[in-house]
Amino acid sequence: MYTVADYLLDRLKELGIDDIFGVPGDYNLKFLDQITARKDLKWIGNANELNAAYMADGYARTNGLSAFVTTFGVGELSAINGLAGSYAENVPVIEIVGSPTTKVQEAKKLVHHTLGDGDFMHFEKMHDEITAAVAHLTIENALTEIDRVLQVALTQKRPVYLNLPIDVAESEATKPVHALIKASREEDFSDLLKTISEHLQRSVSPIVIAGHELLSWQLEQPLAAFIQKFNLPITSLPLGKSAFNEEDPHYLGTYSGSTTAEPLKNRVDSADFILLLGAKLTDSATSGFSFGFSEQQMISIGCDEVSLFGTKEKGIQLDQFLPTLMNLSYEGYSGELLPMIHAAREEEINDTLTQKTLWSSIESFLIPGDIVAAEQGTSFFGMTNVALKKDMFFIGQPLWGSIGYTFPAVIGSQLAKPANRHILFIGDGSLQLTVQELGTAIREKITPIIFVLNNNGYTVEREIHGEQEPYNDIPMWDYQHLPFVFGGTNDSVATYKVRTVNDLNEALIAARKETEKLQWIEVILDQKDAPELLKKLAKIFAKQNS
Amino acid sequence: MYTVADYLLDRLKELGIDDIFGVPGDYNLKFLDQITARKDLKWIGNANELNAAYMADGYARTNGLSAFVTTFGVGELSAINGLAGSYAENVPVIEIVGSPTTKVQEAKKLVHHTLGDGDFMHFEKMHDEITAAVAHLTIENALTEIDRVLQVALTQKRPVYLNLPIDVAESEATKPVHALIKASREEDFSDLLKTISEHLQRSVSPIVIAGHELLSWQLEQPLAAFIQKFNLPITSLPLGKSAFNEEDPHYLGTYSGSTTAEPLKNRVDSADFILLLGAKLTDSATSGFSFGFSEQQMISIGCDEVSLFGTKEKGIQLDQFLPTLMNLSYEGYSGELLPMIHAAREEEINDTLTQKTLWSSIESFLIPGDIVAAEQGTSFFGMTNVALKKDMFFIGQPLWGSIGYTFPAVIGSQLAKPANRHILFIGDGSLQLTVQELGTAIREKITPIIFVLNNNGYTVEREIHGEQEPYNDIPMWDYQHLPFVFGGTNDSVATYKVRTVNDLNEALIAARKETEKLQWIEVILDQKDAPELLKKLAKIFAKQNS
Repeated sequence: MYTVADYLLDRLKELGIDDIFGVPGDYNLKFLDQITARKDLKWIGNANELNAAYMADGYARTNGLSAFVTTFGVGELSAINGLAGSYAENVPVIEIVGSPTTKVQEAKKLVHHTLGDGDFMHFEKMHDEITAAVAHLTIENALTEIDRVLQVALTQKRPVYLNLPIDVAESEATKPVHALIKASREEDFSDLLKTISEHLQRSVSPIVIAGHELLSWQLEQPLAAFIQKFNLPITSLPLGKSAFNEEDPHYLGTYSGSTTAEPLKNRVDSADFILLLGAKLTDSATSGFSFGFSEQQMISIGCDEVSLFGTKEKGIQLDQFLPTLMNLSYEGYSGELLPMIHAAREEEINDTLTQKTLWSSIESFLIPGDIVAAEQGTSFFGMTNVALKKDMFFIGQPLWGSIGYTFPAVIGSQLAKPANRHILFIGDGSLQLTVQELGTAIREKITPIIFVLNNNGYTVEREIHGEQEPYNDIPMWDYQHLPFVFGGTNDSVATYKVRTVNDLNEALIAARKETEKLQWIEVILDQKDAPELLKKLAKIFAKQNS
Repeated sequence: MYTVADYLLDRLKELGIDDIFGVPGDYNLKFLDQITARKDLKWIGNANELNAAYMADGYARTNGLSAFVTTFGVGELSAINGLAGSYAENVPVIEIVGSPTTKVQEAKKLVHHTLGDGDFMHFEKMHDEITAAVAHLTIENALTEIDRVLQVALTQKRPVYLNLPIDVAESEATKPVHALIKASREEDFSDLLKTISEHLQRSVSPIVIAGHELLSWQLEQPLAAFIQKFNLPITSLPLGKSAFNEEDPHYLGTYSGSTTAEPLKNRVDSADFILLLGAKLTDSATSGFSFGFSEQQMISIGCDEVSLFGTKEKGIQLDQFLPTLMNLSYEGYSGELLPMIHAAREEEINDTLTQKTLWSSIESFLIPGDIVAAEQGTSFFGMTNVALKKDMFFIGQPLWGSIGYTFPAVIGSQLAKPANRHILFIGDGSLQLTVQELGTAIREKITPIIFVLNNNGYTVEREIHGEQEPYNDIPMWDYQHLPFVFGGTNDSVATYKVRTVNDLNEALIAARKETEKLQWIEVILDQKDAPELLKKLAKIFAKQNS
């Protein structure tokens, strides 16, 4: 019998999902049967639900969409922070929550994984706050509700939530006849295009700033075509890094407000016209709102909001809009393109391993096609000014900023894109939150290169406040042996411990060559050492918190 | 200057809190300064926030109250499942969320750890669903709101939530003048006592069933006095185990519905009067509602509801009520007390280590004063029928049933009660969710005895559904070396791997003797072996899910 579960899984396949993450629980076991019975879908069991949500987020960032399954109550609430991060940063993740049978719910029974008050709606209500759509499936509404929330995920690039009672999953359904059509508003962009044309035409020093929404909508190609056609200079925010090829001469470097290196900072701040595309000027992306330009210089086009020199309108569908930029009435920019800022590059490298020499070596190490993730901490701020190569994709989470996120996320993305080498930079403090997914990485035989920046605690927090305070200390683990307790062997994992630039360079060469093993590189750094950008930003955040 | 932070911490001290759990984040760092500056409070940093919530729950179960600190957004949402569990099982935990300054919140700034929409109330609203009280502190309301929510925690024995903006924490306050008075409703129990007296007087085969709310209100003493005075037979639900001394002749064994061993099952089901005290007849406590008695035999006195032979009234304050049971007009029970059911005890033990022989050995191993935690899985169902000794306390979570919970919880309780030996039983599947708190246990130099039941995956789920399905498999870790990667050494941890009854007994003797090291006992069990109770219950749950 063809069931609602089959329908849902057929839809997920149709939308390009090949792997489903999650943790089993008795309210979802039968649904999991439907997944494992299929040859075209793979079940990836996680060690816990928050990690599943993070892994699904990473998968969605490079695959375009993802799904994970939890059980009612305990599972969905464990995962909820991961979904909130997907909401904040526009990542389309589908959570499927296996719930008690409709009969049990209607009878308000005091079953396990409830608050013991007969109310089965608490958790759904909580998800309303952090998802773009919530559906409680019934035998009657299942197919239309599934289609509705999937369309929301596709259209808004945000997470959605499906509450799937056991009996509904098993109920009879009809196969989808038509492919799921992405709901499209009919929007007329001609006025907007005219305004942009006029201002570009008049501008002597325009600049384009790319943001993360372009990555969510996978608009790298139309963005590149637009920039090339009109010869425009472009930068991106840290929240949006890799939206544009950083090797292209039109790319001037990454802009992060007052902490940006000159001459880029001045070039952006003094631009007479700024076109923000899919970008949000958040505190972490702009060093505490320290951008040197004003709304009066700027048109910002975003999915949540369009701002025309300070006048706010509702957001637009970026995937509809971006290709129309090719139709601007504009002859193109004929001014100078500044040379790319290589803020991370150290010209004279001695053998002392510091944040400076580390990120300089990493800039040389990266190659086209790499997918790099950097944890919100010294890693993210170090990577911000590393110039990426062509066809790279960057995973960070500077708006939501949930530590521990990138470790499962990079595993998720590696599963989505097995052909691309994945590289993660994560500090010891952050790794401790989600470390158990090492077991998943090893079981799935994936071979990312993982840099564990061991600086003995929360250096990012020390920079903001409490340098010597015990709350910024963490237990010292034996990072060299970690992979081996989680199922790794010398056949599946290569480990390195580097203390000097020379050690590092040897490890980099070996890790790049060795594609058959997970590469685990522990980098010993001073706990007081931090990337320049972080040092400056930390002072700004400390002030914001006073 | 005496601040709101000082006031809050003085109140926590006053209420018996000596340790505060949590994870630092830039919105709570200055509040943490206030904690670490005090000699009378200890900061216990956790590896992640869900673990902090679980650890605080364990601490509250044996200490009576606990507190933990997270940061806004990412931290509080990571922890929310832990708090929901505390709500379901009536555990008073105080969550303090460090949030951005009032100025930042009022200006709706796009700061990190928000959804990027300028709305700072999403997460507070989510907490409304799973806490007994939520307060958003301001400079004006801070002291009264702190007192209000603390009173709710004390009165309802449920978690409460304090949103503490940085500037509010630092604002000037006055020291509390009076001790916090527990809000008490004036309740008149005389009608209720009269009804109970009459029915006991008339009853030939009465029985008392104790539940978990008695543990939440720490009512073991008045319960014992009541039972002794009237010579009443008593049992407890699995959700309520240890509310009454299981060595006392009045205790007949643990009652779990249709899965209860005879003659206890028949004794309870055929009782002509049943007095439920602080008990909820949930599916996991009664093997899927398979209790053999009806509402017409029963008076149930609970904090949420009182039920008089099926007529429901609102709940009462158990701590006010329970001592008044001494005033019943009743001459006492003069019938037979059944001998205690030792369902776990195996008379003939051979050397094959099975669930049966394991729990039989454990029954002999336990001594008065032990605090035992059993994870919701084979461990919980194995422990249900192990007879506890005098002055033992039992930690389980059968209603909420969030796997991984007991590992941080037992560490939390051990910190609250350093003089009691703590013993944990947890399966490999559950341990994987929260394993990183091993680092915390080792850093804090606590020495519980931890049994890791290694049965290669989720045996509890296999019993319910999908015995051979890959989703019930988990990566095989090297459990013997786990403690050593998390900072353990041979001076701080003793490890054992037991495969036979003989191995087990040797480990038990050594572990009991060795109080200066954390005892880590890996117990190898067949993945298809499960306690009898679980086998029966799993069939019932499978039916409930169909």
